[in-house]
Amino acid sequence: MQPTISVITLITDNLARAVSFYRDGLGLPTQGIVGDVNTDTQVAFFSLNDNLKLALWPRRSLANQLGITPRGSGHMLSHNVSRQEQVDELASAAEHAGAELLKPPHWQPWACYGAYFKDHDGHLWEITYNPKYK
Amino acid sequence: MQPTISVITLITDNLARAVSFYRDGLGLPTQGIVGDVNTDTQVAFFSLNDNLKLALWPRRSLANQLGITPRGSGHMLSHNVSRQEQVDELASAAEHAGAELLKPPHWQPWACYGAYFKDHDGHLWEITYNPKYK
Repeated sequence: MQPTISVITLITDNLARAVSFYRDGLGLPTQGIVGDVNTDTQVAFFSLNDNLKLALWPRRSLANQLGITPRGSGHMLSHNVSRQEQVDELASAAEHAGAELLKPPHWQPWACYGAYFKDHDGHLWEITYNPKYK
Repeated sequence: MQPTISVITLITDNLARAVSFYRDGLGLPTQGIVGDVNTDTQVAFFSLNDNLKLALWPRRSLANQLGITPRGSGHMLSHNVSRQEQVDELASAAEHAGAELLKPPHWQPWACYGAYFKDHDGHLWEITYNPKYK
């Protein structure tokens, strides 16, 4: 696994409140909420250090999009790979090392190939391949 | 607040197991566990993207060092500032925006000046000034 994280996702129970906190309260730059509330695809991104984003994602969207429902102040770290088979390799390596594979590698509706696992302590990871950014 | 995160901390209930998972299982580079088990200062760092580190920190150390005890798969995002008064300013801004200030700005035993808060959804943040790296 290349030592990179592309997105830090913080799960929120109130996306508008969370965007206001980080944008207006702390002054982080964002284009605000993007996506469609009717299809549960709303999210907000904040561009941070080189190639790193902070994402605010409603708990309900995570459940509906991924079938994953973290409890409490859930979070997810995303690792992007440049070849599809690296998703398979890393998901397999993580599972072999004791991770719980929540979603095996699969093509997602938004045209990315991804897998999701939890480490021993319950920390959620996404391994994803986006053909647009390979 | 400058749009940067310097450390992503994942809380663990078994530091050795967590280090093994990320180092041996996923292949992330680390110098392994540093610090002293007798003073509850053990931690492991993994260098990621430019200026970003992944840290594994035992739950007990977080409790003993900071007096903060996240439940479940806790995490913390650290934001480094270059002037001491920025810690005061950001802690005040966060509290004004509705964050719960867990530790007001103070000098810590490890010679950093820091503050800790939780956002509306319970996500833990550290704002820290390290005179060595200003």
